[in-house]
Amino acid sequence: MMAMEAHPYVPRDLHLPDYAPCFLSMSNIVSVFAFSSLLLVTLIWIVSGRLKISKVDRVLMCWWAFTGLTHIILEGYFVFSPEFFKDKTGFYLAEVWKEYSKGDSRYAGRDAGVVTVEGITSVLEGPACLLAVYAISAGKSYSYILQFAISLGQLYGTIVYYITAILEGDNFSTNTFYYYAYYIGANVSWLVIPSIIAIRCWRKICAALRVQGGQTKKAKVR
Amino acid sequence: MMAMEAHPYVPRDLHLPDYAPCFLSMSNIVSVFAFSSLLLVTLIWIVSGRLKISKVDRVLMCWWAFTGLTHIILEGYFVFSPEFFKDKTGFYLAEVWKEYSKGDSRYAGRDAGVVTVEGITSVLEGPACLLAVYAISAGKSYSYILQFAISLGQLYGTIVYYITAILEGDNFSTNTFYYYAYYIGANVSWLVIPSIIAIRCWRKICAALRVQGGQTKKAKVR
Repeated sequence: MMAMEAHPYVPRDLHLPDYAPCFLSMSNIVSVFAFSSLLLVTLIWIVSGRLKISKVDRVLMCWWAFTGLTHIILEGYFVFSPEFFKDKTGFYLAEVWKEYSKGDSRYAGRDAGVVTVEGITSVLEGPACLLAVYAISAGKSYSYILQFAISLGQLYGTIVYYITAILEGDNFSTNTFYYYAYYIGANVSWLVIPSIIAIRCWRKICAALRVQGGQTKKAKVR
Repeated sequence: MMAMEAHPYVPRDLHLPDYAPCFLSMSNIVSVFAFSSLLLVTLIWIVSGRLKISKVDRVLMCWWAFTGLTHIILEGYFVFSPEFFKDKTGFYLAEVWKEYSKGDSRYAGRDAGVVTVEGITSVLEGPACLLAVYAISAGKSYSYILQFAISLGQLYGTIVYYITAILEGDNFSTNTFYYYAYYIGANVSWLVIPSIIAIRCWRKICAALRVQGGQTKKAKVR
């Protein structure tokens, strides 16, 4: 017989010894995240206003700062804290992942696929996002290809995240609310926004190469 | 007590009902793959000689044709044949994966991470590789960004492949020989070659954008 565990997660037989319940409420957790994100985005928006760059590039700087710090701080904490669900101190980052695990218990359960994707995202993509903020602000020639590379990585990670869940039975949510609010809702931005950025960078890069190609042809004709 | 299964794979308690032993020998399997790859590469090399492109581009056409068909045929078969280990007909593609599973039993065991990575590789990257062959031959402006995108996907996939194995205990090889010959040896090319191509494309794209950036500045001065 399988013992029922003292945690709120599905599947019910997930083994999480010494699980400590959430201290913070959902609205606490979400409002801290929303407030600090808004503060960051406002700050980047104001500072970037002093640069001679387009509004699109300023929006992109906000996005890369937001997603980069989310990768490094939130996801980085998860990757290197295998026992976050035992945290009894009410530490915010542990609370985030205890709460999120209601939408996807593979986080508390330390699924190898999830840890791998989050590891690549936090260690490689996170710092690369902050480099993208700098690259846009400084008008670097590698700005588009860097943004393209990170966006593709984010897309690949999100696709792996969903396909592994489906192949493993798609039964990791406490209930339908958490399934749509956390598992779907909190991740869908990382499908939509990277797709838009990747397409934009692809077009910009092709345009630059067409210009260069045209010049080479002209040079040959001369 | 765990029953010992009638298959050669590790872990020994991996459950593979109706497993049918390999019909072909290792040298059979490898020589068919090597011979058909060599034939393909030779063919592409000869045909590409009629095009006005550099030798590097001809080598790249050979690589993309080889890796694309490997993704589509070999890996595509694996993704859509969950019961390949039951094959009693001696069908070549089933034999390949029965043999390769000696280096990584997650193939026979249908590990969600492996199936996901192979699915993305065969369905998305495979056809994209063949498009790259065409893009290089036709001198398309999207040639570099496409090669960059596929290479990054191959790298991401290979990294996920290895990290998930390590997190799951790295105990999927029948013995040390298969560990190094199949699990390491057969995959290391997909770390080295995509890295080289990605760096090359990054540089080419940055160079084109520097040229364009320089022109914009000149135009502004005028």
